Amino acid sequence: MVQPVRVGVVGCGYWGPNLIRNFQRQADAQVVAVADQRPERLEPILRASPGLEGHADAAALIARADIDAVVIATPVATHFPLALAALQAGKHVFVEKPLADSEAACARLIEEAERRKLVLMVDHVFVFTSAVQKIEAMLARGDLGELYYYDSVRVNLGLFQPDVNVIWDLAVHDLAILDAIAPGPPLTVAATAHRHIPGQAENMAALTLSYAGNFTAHINVNWLSPVKVRRTLIGGSKRMIVYDDIEPDHKIMVYEKGVDYVDPGPDAAKVRVSYRTGDMAAPHLDGREALDRAAAHFLECVRSGEAPRTDGRAGLRVVAVMAAAMRSLAAGGTAMGINA
Amino acid sequence: MVQPVRVGVVGCGYWGPNLIRNFQRQADAQVVAVADQRPERLEPILRASPGLEGHADAAALIARADIDAVVIATPVATHFPLALAALQAGKHVFVEKPLADSEAACARLIEEAERRKLVLMVDHVFVFTSAVQKIEAMLARGDLGELYYYDSVRVNLGLFQPDVNVIWDLAVHDLAILDAIAPGPPLTVAATAHRHIPGQAENMAALTLSYAGNFTAHINVNWLSPVKVRRTLIGGSKRMIVYDDIEPDHKIMVYEKGVDYVDPGPDAAKVRVSYRTGDMAAPHLDGREALDRAAAHFLECVRSGEAPRTDGRAGLRVVAVMAAAMRSLAAGGTAMGINA
Amino acid sequence: MVQPVRVGVVGCGYWGPNLIRNFQRQADAQVVAVADQRPERLEPILRASPGLEGHADAAALIARADIDAVVIATPVATHFPLALAALQAGKHVFVEKPLADSEAACARLIEEAERRKLVLMVDHVFVFTSAVQKIEAMLARGDLGELYYYDSVRVNLGLFQPDVNVIWDLAVHDLAILDAIAPGPPLTVAATAHRHIPGQAENMAALTLSYAGNFTAHINVNWLSPVKVRRTLIGGSKRMIVYDDIEPDHKIMVYEKGVDYVDPGPDAAKVRVSYRTGDMAAPHLDGREALDRAAAHFLECVRSGEAPRTDGRAGLRVVAVMAAAMRSLAAGGTAMGINA
Amino acid sequence: MVQPVRVGVVGCGYWGPNLIRNFQRQADAQVVAVADQRPERLEPILRASPGLEGHADAAALIARADIDAVVIATPVATHFPLALAALQAGKHVFVEKPLADSEAACARLIEEAERRKLVLMVDHVFVFTSAVQKIEAMLARGDLGELYYYDSVRVNLGLFQPDVNVIWDLAVHDLAILDAIAPGPPLTVAATAHRHIPGQAENMAALTLSYAGNFTAHINVNWLSPVKVRRTLIGGSKRMIVYDDIEPDHKIMVYEKGVDYVDPGPDAAKVRVSYRTGDMAAPHLDGREALDRAAAHFLECVRSGEAPRTDGRAGLRVVAVMAAAMRSLAAGGTAMGINA
Repeated sequence: MVQPVRVGVVGCGYWGPNLIRNFQRQADAQVVAVADQRPERLEPILRASPGLEGHADAAALIARADIDAVVIATPVATHFPLALAALQAGKHVFVEKPLADSEAACARLIEEAERRKLVLMVDHVFVFTSAVQKIEAMLARGDLGELYYYDSVRVNLGLFQPDVNVIWDLAVHDLAILDAIAPGPPLTVAATAHRHIPGQAENMAALTLSYAGNFTAHINVNWLSPVKVRRTLIGGSKRMIVYDDIEPDHKIMVYEKGVDYVDPGPDAAKVRVSYRTGDMAAPHLDGREALDRAAAHFLECVRSGEAPRTDGRAGLRVVAVMAAAMRSLAAGGTAMGINA
Repeated sequence: MVQPVRVGVVGCGYWGPNLIRNFQRQADAQVVAVADQRPERLEPILRASPGLEGHADAAALIARADIDAVVIATPVATHFPLALAALQAGKHVFVEKPLADSEAACARLIEEAERRKLVLMVDHVFVFTSAVQKIEAMLARGDLGELYYYDSVRVNLGLFQPDVNVIWDLAVHDLAILDAIAPGPPLTVAATAHRHIPGQAENMAALTLSYAGNFTAHINVNWLSPVKVRRTLIGGSKRMIVYDDIEPDHKIMVYEKGVDYVDPGPDAAKVRVSYRTGDMAAPHLDGREALDRAAAHFLECVRSGEAPRTDGRAGLRVVAVMAAAMRSLAAGGTAMGINA
Repeated sequence: MVQPVRVGVVGCGYWGPNLIRNFQRQADAQVVAVADQRPERLEPILRASPGLEGHADAAALIARADIDAVVIATPVATHFPLALAALQAGKHVFVEKPLADSEAACARLIEEAERRKLVLMVDHVFVFTSAVQKIEAMLARGDLGELYYYDSVRVNLGLFQPDVNVIWDLAVHDLAILDAIAPGPPLTVAATAHRHIPGQAENMAALTLSYAGNFTAHINVNWLSPVKVRRTLIGGSKRMIVYDDIEPDHKIMVYEKGVDYVDPGPDAAKVRVSYRTGDMAAPHLDGREALDRAAAHFLECVRSGEAPRTDGRAGLRVVAVMAAAMRSLAAGGTAMGINA
Repeated sequence: MVQPVRVGVVGCGYWGPNLIRNFQRQADAQVVAVADQRPERLEPILRASPGLEGHADAAALIARADIDAVVIATPVATHFPLALAALQAGKHVFVEKPLADSEAACARLIEEAERRKLVLMVDHVFVFTSAVQKIEAMLARGDLGELYYYDSVRVNLGLFQPDVNVIWDLAVHDLAILDAIAPGPPLTVAATAHRHIPGQAENMAALTLSYAGNFTAHINVNWLSPVKVRRTLIGGSKRMIVYDDIEPDHKIMVYEKGVDYVDPGPDAAKVRVSYRTGDMAAPHLDGREALDRAAAHFLECVRSGEAPRTDGRAGLRVVAVMAAAMRSLAAGGTAMGINA
């Protein structure tokens, strides 16, 4: 048996306990300490796991010599200083999405990790779901033909975030999925958004991404919806997918549907299109929790020194789209180029 | 018994037979003649209704002295010349959505109808559904509180239209509904769109409309979807609605849900929001066909001389949004002002 | 072109107009006359189809020399006298389900049709749906392995029938489907039923059928349900089907699910079972109307002289189960043998 | 603060950990010890809760002087001996459903508990769900009018139980709900069942219960279904309910639907029925876990000495129906009287 990777977790809010539980269940990891400023958050966790040590101060946790890796699940604005401090203390870092709140901050973290040969992984958790991995495999095999679009609705009631708008909270998931499955990097993004509650950030937004070639993406997010929706349509020339993350049994439904046409060449008359329709199939997905798979992947990378699938560069690419979306918002929806 | 209004129908394509059937069932109307250039379209209708006279040429139908009103269900580009000819021949006109393909054409039709004191009605058919009329009644009573947003997904596989893109074919329905229920006229529209089939019009588009005050609208349309979706979220400060036009039994679901907050004033700290959740109610809707209600309304207006709910001006307002959306597309998604 | 089969339709209630419409659309048939005692039922049909002749008296229609076949869609109690009269007048007969209200009546009709070499077909309409035909094809290929059960829920609000209970109105559909797909004839039926409205027939019933071997069937019918359900589970050793006739797109969903076990032999200890779970597939079904297919099949049999798939004997087999179910009701639910 | 009730839990299989967790969260209870013969079941629980003491032998746990109450979650056949031993040791007892495997065993437990003034509660867990409690409240207010029927489908794939058939595993839940909400005790039960796996118990069954007056109940259970269904229709003269326990948001949907009729008296002609249809409402249900509520109720009864809502007598009533159902199975489905 190898030595376990010793892990410290900073942040015991909504997502922290899930991270603790999933790192605890890894055979080759040991959760050593947790940190949160709020005693009412820290205490129930220490009660449930008597072996853990608690810190009110993240710096104290980061400073511990008996920790190899730091897991960060705090508000977005604090990702950068905490991750940087952890890297500078020689720790591998696993940080909640988004990696940081600006492209410059992401770049700085990447540089620090590379210089120190430490693993920097961002928790683009949907990339580790069975559903998205199945979609990736189908795309890799060419099952959908030419990929036409990704069109997502991701809405629910709450939770208004204290320091970011709904794009940074919800659209980030779609941007992370797109980073894994799109046929190339996005070129531009056009964004619109609206705030309905005075003094709060934008709670409703729509993003349209353009890509080289025929592919496009549209993302609709909202914190003020009466119902929870997590539904993505993925269209291709051969097949199309409905990916509904809320559906308990059939998260992915693959339709043998599409449009046939003959390309008429430049000077021909109108193309005639016809419709194809056929069977639907819902592939069986294993029930493994995405966070379990993400934690295992991080630990593997710590041991092997390889770059994670969702490394700092993936984190930066996703943040770059959101930064461009903010510029588009400021410009009344004009499509803005994305810094590659 | 009053004299029936004598009706001629031009266009026997996809929608024409529905119009014929619904005007035939009105007690105070008589469908006298139909016109279509395509004999294979005309013949089955004449076989089923032996009393009707058929014309290959719309002009011949319009010229008939024994017709009081002309119903037009032809490709969009022909709405204007056919409607204008009918008005100039002294006929009342009921025309499929959209009223015409440009703001100027709409204005010309309005002027002609007003000068001749003829009824000009556009078939904004969703305005006549039980569902939209129920939503209007709820908004009029203030059931939703302050109206926050209208967010619609209207996608399906096909039918690619020969002369217009998906905005003019599908988004027009949402714009017509918004014309009836929004708290005011839209100020700007930002649009993005994509064409996947060479030589065809845009088959996928997203529109964001801004309004005075807190209200906004988002519309997502697509001709290349594996599934048919007709689902609109309508958010308000007190209640929220899911309006699903495909749902057979519960087209409207009203949620006692929302967000509470105290407006902190300009110099206060962050607003604190909390979530309200309560019962859901699905009001019973009568099963009357929207087109039956629209046909009856048109006939009433012909008799009374009153302006229809969806008169030429409503038709123009909707076309003005689409024209601005086309300008936004050309400008890379920038929000464009709408000509009031 | 062959001479069309000349058809007369008796009964213009709920189902009659569907039969008229579907026989009218057959290229090789001509609907000549219709009969109904109720002028208010007859008139709208004659108005819509000016070529038809109407009769207040079914006997007059049956007596017409210019009719080859009689289609009967009247209350159950009248099926026998009308069908018998039509056969005795030398007409082929297509009769709504159930064939008649007793086994003796069915037998008499079969005998009359066979003696006169006339086609006698009962409208077991579900047997002609794309869904049931797909299920039959799957069973014929052995896709489900050994067939374990058929378990149906068929409930809705209304329509209380004037002369029969819910078994004769709704369960008859399941019995007709079972007649087509079960691995053999049913041996016994146990039935329970309840009447909630004074003076009305039983509105709620459950039937359990036993068969030779491992197969069984359960049918739950109800006229007093708040929602309409048409959902059948079909279990086999290899695969299982959910057949939901209300589902617009996926009427049949085939699950790669089941139980594995090793038969331990007579003196072994407990069998150990394990569960298999895999993909789901929803085969594409063509949209052809079942009644169109049934009408075409009847006309084919009239021309060829072959026995229809749902001939008088199929009608009798189904009535025999319902007659046994009535005996079971009278005996407090005891399973009763079915007359083969 | 009062002294906590000290609890020991016997059985760490499927349900045991849920019981442990829910008793641990009660402020006025302390889980002291757990027992299971299988070390692989015991160990993870002890690891997660270092304060607990583990026993391989239930008798050792029951004998502990520092325990006030014993919670039993073991195979059905062992409920009686374990519960009896616990009562005889002076402990209050909370036992999984069903209370025991025979009416005699239930009666013996009731007698022992009453003589010793100990609390005996059976975990009819659905009685403690928000959904069933809402239904009870509606019935108590007369919202449904006269109650007509309870019609349940409770099917899924697995888990075959080692010592009981599907009636004792799944139908028991419906019988427990009926014990709480039916207008009176059931008079007879007719049951049919089928076994598809050699050497296993019946995996599919249907029960019909008769009651005094107009009410009836039907229960359909199956361990070999491709899909999980937990759907109950509850019909009344004024309103009807669809109770779907799997539905995440709308477990209860109340329909303003029904049938109106005039009772014609004994010598009148046929009753005429008409259908009412109106709004649907889905009341908000609090998200409290049923087992949390059940555990709290047990502890309250231990303190107050009052009889639990699901006391030994409720347990006996439910077992009496299942015993009668077994007699009905043996008699080919004949309705059997239930021992009151």
